[in-house]
Formats: sequence, C-alpha cells, structure tokens
Amino acid sequence: MSQYSIAVLAGDGIGPEVMQEANKVLDAVEKKFNVSLNRTAYPVGGYAIDTEGEALPSKTLLGCEQADAILFGSIGGPKWDTLPLEQRPERAALLTLRSHFDLFSNLRPARIYPGLESLSPLREDIAKSGVDVLVVRELTSGIYFGQPKGREGEGEEEFAYDTMRYSKREIRRIAIAAFEAAQKRRGKVTSVDKANVLVTSRLWREIAEEVAKDYPDVELDHIYIDNATMQIMKNPAQFDVMLCSNLFGDIVSDECAMMTGSMGLLPSASMNEDGFGLYEPAGGSAPDIAGQGIANPIAQILSAAMMLRFSMNLGDAADAIEKAVVATLEAGVLTGELLPAEQRENAASTSQVGDEIV
Amino acid sequence: MSQYSIAVLAGDGIGPEVMQEANKVLDAVEKKFNVSLNRTAYPVGGYAIDTEGEALPSKTLLGCEQADAILFGSIGGPKWDTLPLEQRPERAALLTLRSHFDLFSNLRPARIYPGLESLSPLREDIAKSGVDVLVVRELTSGIYFGQPKGREGEGEEEFAYDTMRYSKREIRRIAIAAFEAAQKRRGKVTSVDKANVLVTSRLWREIAEEVAKDYPDVELDHIYIDNATMQIMKNPAQFDVMLCSNLFGDIVSDECAMMTGSMGLLPSASMNEDGFGLYEPAGGSAPDIAGQGIANPIAQILSAAMMLRFSMNLGDAADAIEKAVVATLEAGVLTGELLPAEQRENAASTSQVGDEIV
Ligand SMILES: CC(C)[C@H](C(=O)O)[C@@H](O)C(=O)O
Ligand SMILES: CC(C)[C@H](C(=O)O)[C@@H](O)C(=O)O
Repeated sequence: MSQYSIAVLAGDGIGPEVMQEANKVLDAVEKKFNVSLNRTAYPVGGYAIDTEGEALPSKTLLGCEQADAILFGSIGGPKWDTLPLEQRPERAALLTLRSHFDLFSNLRPARIYPGLESLSPLREDIAKSGVDVLVVRELTSGIYFGQPKGREGEGEEEFAYDTMRYSKREIRRIAIAAFEAAQKRRGKVTSVDKANVLVTSRLWREIAEEVAKDYPDVELDHIYIDNATMQIMKNPAQFDVMLCSNLFGDIVSDECAMMTGSMGLLPSASMNEDGFGLYEPAGGSAPDIAGQGIANPIAQILSAAMMLRFSMNLGDAADAIEKAVVATLEAGVLTGELLPAEQRENAASTSQVGDEIV
Repeated sequence: MSQYSIAVLAGDGIGPEVMQEANKVLDAVEKKFNVSLNRTAYPVGGYAIDTEGEALPSKTLLGCEQADAILFGSIGGPKWDTLPLEQRPERAALLTLRSHFDLFSNLRPARIYPGLESLSPLREDIAKSGVDVLVVRELTSGIYFGQPKGREGEGEEEFAYDTMRYSKREIRRIAIAAFEAAQKRRGKVTSVDKANVLVTSRLWREIAEEVAKDYPDVELDHIYIDNATMQIMKNPAQFDVMLCSNLFGDIVSDECAMMTGSMGLLPSASMNEDGFGLYEPAGGSAPDIAGQGIANPIAQILSAAMMLRFSMNLGDAADAIEKAVVATLEAGVLTGELLPAEQRENAASTSQVGDEIV
C-alpha cells in the first residue's frame, strides 16, 4: 500500500472547520483507493501566534519538511492586524513557506460552474459564455522578493523602493508550467505583462516566446496587465491559461476568482520542482462567519484533490473528488452563499456538504 | 477678453475625427463665453513618425511648451507596433510628454450613465447601483520611471530588473490632489496599495494618513490592489476617489473604464503643479473603426471640458459642455457602440453627436 504523509495546517477563521471536511474526504479516499494518507496537524497563523508566540513555529516548519505535501487552511484576521507587518500571519507564515520550499508554481483555477452563473457579478450572457481559466502565477520571485528594498534619504526627499527582478531561469520554469498545463486543457497560453514599460516584462515575453517553440500544439499570445483586467470582465471565455508574474498573478487571479462569484469553490496549488506543494483555498479566513458551521468546504476539498493529483500522483482519487463535488453542486447541496437570499433557509451546513461529497 | 492657447495633438486612428468635433464645441464656447481659445495643430504619434520621422517632433514639443494646455487625441496602431519600443508612439510621445511637463496628477473619471447600464459587463443590479468613480493616478514616478532598470548577468542567470520608487514629496502631492477632488465629490478617498508586500506601499500609506489629517471632512481607507480589482467588480458604488500609484492606477483605471461599458465616453486629465495639463480620451486610437465617421467624440469633448476647467479656470464653460453631453445622451443621439445591435441602423455619426452637443 502506498503511504504518504501530509502536514495539515488548518490555521485561523474558517480554516479548522473546512479542514475537518477535507479530512473526511481524505479518509474516504484512503478506503476507496487503498492508500495511506497520514496526516499530522500543526499550528500556523494567528492561532500559532496566540499559542506558540509566532506565526510559523519551528515545529510546524519541521513537520512540513518531513511531509510529502502541506494541506493549508487559511490564516489571518483582525486580531493580528495590528502586529508589525513582518510578524503578521500572511507574511510570517505564508510568504515564508512559499520561499522556504521554493513553491514557484502557483495554479489558481477559476471557473463558473453551470447552474451557478447567477452568482457571478458579470452580466448573464458573459457569465454563461463558458468561463474556465487557469491562472499560473510565479510565486517566489518578482517584486515580492527582489532586492534591494528599503527606505533612504531625508525630509520630503526620503524615498522607498522595491525591486522587480526576474532571471531567465525563473521565467522559463514558470512558463514551462503554463505550457504543460495548457497542453492538458484547451491549448492556449496568454502571457500577462507590461512590456511597453517594464524591462522585466520584455525578458518575460522573450522567454515565453522561447518556451513556446517547444510546444507547437499550444498557442501563445501576450496581453498587457491593464488590458487583461478589462478583458477578464468583458470576455473571460477567451482565456484558457494565463501566465503571470508574482504581482500581476496576484491581481489577475483575484479578479478571476471574483468573476466566478463563488470564491468558496476555488482551490489553489503552490508547487516546487520536486512535486512538493502547498494546497490552499483561494478565499481568506473569513473571520466573520467562522465557527458557525456555514462556511463552504469545497475550496478546501478541491485543494486536497489538487494535492493528490500533483504531489502524490493519485489522479484517479483527484478525479473522484472532483466528480463528487460537481455531483454535490448539481444535487443542490449548497451552502448559503451559493443560494439566492430567499432560499438561504434551505442551505446545507459545512458538514452536510462534506458528507455529501464523501 | 481672456485669451488661451491650446496645442492640439490629434494623433492617429480616430484621433483626427473626434478632435474635429471637440474643435466645434470649443468654437461654440468661444462665442458663448466670450473667450478666445487659439488652437494650433501639431503632428504626434504614428502620423508624426510617418511625416517627420519621430513620434514627438521638436516643433510639437515646442508648441506644447508655448501653449496653456495640450488637447490630445490618441496615438498608436498596428503599423508602428514593430518599431523598437523606445520609438513607438506610446512611449516616445506619451510617456515623454508626461515626464517632460511633470504631469504627475492623472484624473480618470468612470461613471455609468443612467440609461446606459446595459452596456456594462456587470450584472444589472450592480450596474444600476450608482457607479461614479474618480481614479487619481500618480503619473510621473513609480516603476514607470524608477532607476535603475536594466539587464545583467549571463546564461540562465541573466536577469532583468525595474525599480519601483516613491519619495514622500511625490506621494504627498498626488494624495493632496485626491483629497482636494474628494472634497468636491462625495468625501471619500480609497488608497490602493500592496502594503503587505511593498515598502513603497507602506510609505504610500503613511503619507496618505498624514495628508488625511488636513482634510477632516474626507474619509480615508486603504485597500490592497488585489482586493481592489475584486471590489470594482462586486460593488463599484462603494468607491468615490481611488488614489493610486502609477502602475496600480494604470490597472485600476482601465478596469473602472471597462466596467462602465462605454469607454467612448470617458475623458482624462494629466496635470502638473502649475495647472498646465494634457487632456485625452481614456480609450485608444481604435484603428479598426478610424475614418468611418462612427467613432464616439464624447470622450474627446469631455476631455476638452476638463481642460477648460482645470487649465483655464473656465468652470462655467466646462459645466455647459458636460450638461450638453448628458442632454445629448438623454435625447438618444448615440453612436453605434452605445446602442443594442438591433438598433445600430439608427446610430448617429461622429459629427451628428458633435453637432447636437454644440
Ligand atoms: C497575503 C498576501 C501576501 C498574498 C499575496 O499577495 O500573494 C495573497 O494575496 C495571495 O494572493 O496569496
Ligand atoms: C500606453 C501606456 C504606456 C500607458 C500607461 O501604461 O500609462 C496607457 O496604458 C495609459 O494608461 O495611459
């Protein structure tokens, strides 16, 4: 029997309750697919600050190092927003994990599920046009991590600066990830840049063109980031895979997520070159609805499916989960935020949705 | 009689034909308000490349220096897209003019006009919620102009870099512009940044807070750029003035423009500290529809109104133009892109719309 070990970092807000449902689903996978998915829970985020004094305790980092993958919930909340930035959950835990494990390849799918079009903030005809985008975001370089960064000077001339920086190697590996993904999808990569202004974007475009030569079956085009934010609204169905740098991917993936109108359904994967990865829902910790048993567990469950597919090569199990999710949506077992206001009394609870998927 | 001189740079694509209508309206203003608006036309953009060998000939720059304001059409097109980037119309003319005249304060209003909600790509209830946003974008600093910028290294480790850079003085003057604008509007400034990642954004936030102290009647809040692109889709009516750095303003203003669904109606102003400014439509040169007499001249005409208001202190004349535009829209004198497909045969031409506004 294949054995895998998973570091489970549930975190704050709705993290623990949606993680419980993902665990139920992983239990079912163990039985049905005869694998062993050993899970160990570790503290992270605000909860870890409260109990251990820091957002990413060393025992958590060590546990992640020993595992085959990290299943991540969500972190942060108003309680920890007044801490100095470097100690806050998002930076101290999430950005540190990304960079520590070199999780450069961030996949963020966003689709509008048939039947759920009315949740989209877009006009009905656009929402119904068949929207299914995969944002492939570079996650460990660019202006997030580029050096130097700092403050200098005095008085009104004091200035702050950040460095956007990309090497050919960094661009090439994320471009390859995008083309590989596009081959398994609709065969189209749209690379997002600002090549009319940024030198990094020109190198980005150059390398994207080079990589494209190895994928003659995939079409490549380029779009400026400002135009991309427009086209996502006007005609999102034109996009298959969107290849983005760290900052532009942050922006584009959030706009794509919002466009679906159902953030609670969207998973994400952040992987390195060895297949190790961190898998987390696209949405945040939603402290306002935490602890009420009404949060949607699907994003967490689909994140677990991505983990099985990409870090454990258990594509069949991932397929089974994804099919069960679609069946659950079609059966109308829906948490409140997916229902029109007048039908919210019929909403399923977090655990009812988990049970149905199991 | 007050006398003003205007450098008219019509440019490429639909630029010349919409400029003709703006000129008609300015002729009417001269008579009605007893002012003299002396206009001199200069070549710019692709047209200037073809006729003079460069996108911003020195006689054009000199003409702009001698004028009280620049009324700008639009530039660029496929014909000049294969030129080296530094020679292309957008960079060689537009970015050079912005920086030469220190046009740091870029105002880009975006509103959904009552009656035109169905043009918006947003869901009807959102489009009808009363959307009227002013994006105030810093235009002469940030990552567009920050030094150093370049390429270094060899082989796969060769890297490119850009510098995002802001001084306190640069942030303060654009923040003041945003607060001044908010005082005349609905009293709310939303500052857009990525302060959880960028040092420049932290300084941005710090100075925005300092400036806010001088405007106790204006409310200030902060939003991350990724969340901003989501909120613009989900609930754009929450925004009054959005204060943005150069790059984030490029993105936010285009998303706001698209959200209205009527790019042909949106003007913009780019001003320096002396009240000198460049006024141009938000949309591009639209080479695909150029020369057919079907382009919407309203964005150009409203740009002329902004010019009268901000560079010539002719608020009454600007008000009169803006009222005439609303009346024209209400009267249904509309170019084709504002009409549903089945009514396009009743579309007004570029010059009919201009005449109606006159
Ligand atoms: C929390 C923040 C630093 C993070 C980012 O900008 O990457 C988040 O927005 C995300 O997209 O995962
Ligand atoms: C043409 C381009 C350089 C320019 C910019 O990015 O500023 C344009 O997108 C704009 O917004 O005016």
